[in-house]
Amino acid sequence: MNDQAPAPLEPTDSDHTALLPTAPDGPALSPLVQGYWRMDAWERTPAEHLDFLKAHVELGVTTVDHADVYGRYTIEAQFGEVLALEPSLRQKLQIVTKCGIQLLTPQAPERRIKHYDTRARHLRASIEASLGHFRTDWLDLVLLHRPDPLMDADEVAEVMIELRQSGKVRHFGVSNFTPAQLGLLQSRLPFTLATNQVEIGPLNVASLFDGTLDQLQQLRICPMAWSVLGGGRLFDDEDETGRRVRTALEAVAEELGDCRLDQVAFAWVRQLPSRPFPILGSGRIERVRAAVAALDLVLDREQWFAILQAAQGRPVP
Amino acid sequence: MNDQAPAPLEPTDSDHTALLPTAPDGPALSPLVQGYWRMDAWERTPAEHLDFLKAHVELGVTTVDHADVYGRYTIEAQFGEVLALEPSLRQKLQIVTKCGIQLLTPQAPERRIKHYDTRARHLRASIEASLGHFRTDWLDLVLLHRPDPLMDADEVAEVMIELRQSGKVRHFGVSNFTPAQLGLLQSRLPFTLATNQVEIGPLNVASLFDGTLDQLQQLRICPMAWSVLGGGRLFDDEDETGRRVRTALEAVAEELGDCRLDQVAFAWVRQLPSRPFPILGSGRIERVRAAVAALDLVLDREQWFAILQAAQGRPVP
Amino acid sequence: MNDQAPAPLEPTDSDHTALLPTAPDGPALSPLVQGYWRMDAWERTPAEHLDFLKAHVELGVTTVDHADVYGRYTIEAQFGEVLALEPSLRQKLQIVTKCGIQLLTPQAPERRIKHYDTRARHLRASIEASLGHFRTDWLDLVLLHRPDPLMDADEVAEVMIELRQSGKVRHFGVSNFTPAQLGLLQSRLPFTLATNQVEIGPLNVASLFDGTLDQLQQLRICPMAWSVLGGGRLFDDEDETGRRVRTALEAVAEELGDCRLDQVAFAWVRQLPSRPFPILGSGRIERVRAAVAALDLVLDREQWFAILQAAQGRPVP
Repeated sequence: MNDQAPAPLEPTDSDHTALLPTAPDGPALSPLVQGYWRMDAWERTPAEHLDFLKAHVELGVTTVDHADVYGRYTIEAQFGEVLALEPSLRQKLQIVTKCGIQLLTPQAPERRIKHYDTRARHLRASIEASLGHFRTDWLDLVLLHRPDPLMDADEVAEVMIELRQSGKVRHFGVSNFTPAQLGLLQSRLPFTLATNQVEIGPLNVASLFDGTLDQLQQLRICPMAWSVLGGGRLFDDEDETGRRVRTALEAVAEELGDCRLDQVAFAWVRQLPSRPFPILGSGRIERVRAAVAALDLVLDREQWFAILQAAQGRPVP
Repeated sequence: MNDQAPAPLEPTDSDHTALLPTAPDGPALSPLVQGYWRMDAWERTPAEHLDFLKAHVELGVTTVDHADVYGRYTIEAQFGEVLALEPSLRQKLQIVTKCGIQLLTPQAPERRIKHYDTRARHLRASIEASLGHFRTDWLDLVLLHRPDPLMDADEVAEVMIELRQSGKVRHFGVSNFTPAQLGLLQSRLPFTLATNQVEIGPLNVASLFDGTLDQLQQLRICPMAWSVLGGGRLFDDEDETGRRVRTALEAVAEELGDCRLDQVAFAWVRQLPSRPFPILGSGRIERVRAAVAALDLVLDREQWFAILQAAQGRPVP
Repeated sequence: MNDQAPAPLEPTDSDHTALLPTAPDGPALSPLVQGYWRMDAWERTPAEHLDFLKAHVELGVTTVDHADVYGRYTIEAQFGEVLALEPSLRQKLQIVTKCGIQLLTPQAPERRIKHYDTRARHLRASIEASLGHFRTDWLDLVLLHRPDPLMDADEVAEVMIELRQSGKVRHFGVSNFTPAQLGLLQSRLPFTLATNQVEIGPLNVASLFDGTLDQLQQLRICPMAWSVLGGGRLFDDEDETGRRVRTALEAVAEELGDCRLDQVAFAWVRQLPSRPFPILGSGRIERVRAAVAALDLVLDREQWFAILQAAQGRPVP
């Protein structure tokens, strides 16, 4: 970086925040999704949360990512409380949530072990609870949070069909599924799964090579990308890959006009041909603004592969 | 276990031993299958073998699992000799056997190396030999014992079709096949493969995650499960995973009413949504009786995942 | 080997060098393919190259394997120069070349990193350049050299369709693709991919077990096999697997009548049921002649598995 560097990217008035379908008959989501799994760490009053929510909606980030288990089963209700302060906001949002994990938690003291439950009864109950927490009549997209080795695909398909028909859930998808697991469930459904929310980022490139993203591109299903920034690894000097990737991101950031590391990382993920929807984890509106500003950012092939090379620690073969 | 523990599970008069189809157009097998691969280690006279056979048939375990190579090519004929003592038993049995392995054996002194042969000529000859050994006109189910890198799927399919039409083999399946191998052979067949007999058990959980069981559930093919008890590993104190799993099985066994470790292991496998048919390896009728008694045993989700957690050495993610 | 050993194999007048289709609607190639990636290491004049080319064509090896990047982008043009000495040869040849890699090279000093580019613009330009280098109006078969994580399958399919219709490229295939990558691209094409050129040989048996060859057999696509001899590993005494495989090849070679190690290796690969087309890497005509002479060589099952056992360091399970 130097004095002559162009100003950091700022949002433009292009329509790059228009909603995009995640699959041929999938829901239309905003190209960036605001994650709320750390909402309770933001230490805000409901009014302050509302300000943040309205601010990112204003920026075009209208899709919010949740799960029943976030904050040990507390986040959905906290978010619902915020939404209740201005109920008209609901129409502007696409709410994504997840179910299927049974966490060890003080709320369920009889539970002895973390496990999964994808039986119809649990899915129905979990989704009813989510509807109550959000104080809404419908969820835009519900994902099976984790592949469950006990998943009966017929039973899951039946409950998905039923809940779509009832209007309570508009779309269903999965998260962290392998191609075989997604293929199994898809084989029982009359509609295309809306997404597979998986870990994708310069510090998590496995899905680019293990068939996960190939399958999604083939089925024309866009993934949602979690952990784009790899948790804290990008800034952990003990993490060799983290250091290498940070250096590569910094170099590209400078070339692209003094933009931010996270802007480059989001752009890197969005250039994948399966067209992932990245999830933002930060609660700071300037981070959201920066990510939105980077929606038009395009790395050239060499910049993109420089980051991949850093991730893999070697040039491509 | 304590004095107040309920009595060990015993067979009930429910119809839980009714035959079940292994695939939409597959054979109907008993929910538990008696394996005969260690038959010669039981050190019995033919009359004693007959007693054991009649006893497990009486208990509803009417399917027997064989392979041409068991006992270094001797078991099928030994079993046929037993069956000849009471030929009317044949109608009550479903005989499963396997072919395709060429073992080093004194019977074939010219053979220099263990290998596979899935050519039509060998499959035909092997199946004719099995029919002769069992002194029967038909085999209920014949499996390719191992995936053969030289398998010509067209040639195998042709011989399978021919032998079904002749009535000599009623159904065909495979054993130890990957999803790609099964998919290849299936693509050439006008009927669904009846099963994939694979290693499944609390000490062998790979097939739950590598796509093997996902594919079978998708195709509605039930696996047969070999090595449910993991050979001796469950009782090997040097084996850390074995110790962990044994402890978990013991805890569940006690919760379920002082039942046996192997009963819990069979129930654990049978709860998989691909609905495996476990193979029993013991020649002791009380072990068979115990396994039959456990057919109604159902673990709850936490018990099931406690065993998986022990198998994997960590909670599910 | 001993004095009584039969003479080394020599070409016969059988028609074993007739062209074979690589896929149902694929190109007809010669059963052995002459690789030119080391052409510049042969240190020959154009006239000498022409002699070699005519000699292997005379032997029935009429398919030549190239890539834009071989010899750091120089081989195609060198070959074209040779071909220009006797233009009528073109009709007798099947030219295979590849595109999609962007190599670090003095010819492109602005390039900073090795990367891939499978965008339409690059593929079109690369293929036009290849046509110019070879001084020909058509390429028989063009392969995507490496799977590109940025591959947009729709865009690639569109340019493949366009270039086939123009007559500039008669067939398209891929190289080093996983089953998921090939499946994705195939899903967008109205024709079957002609081949997947992958590493196959006694020192590279991964594709026999990871689904690559299963998929190709299923789709009736024949692979092309590169590195059949494993580079120098077969003669590297430091390489334990190399030593084991060499010993096994030597034993089979002697049994088969004092033939050569490479003859056995080519026969071993050609016996795979996906029917690979091996690529020859040597520029010595006697090596080509030996490989052609071995086209009728057939290992028996034990010989074939002895080599696999040496490759894997253990008997098959």
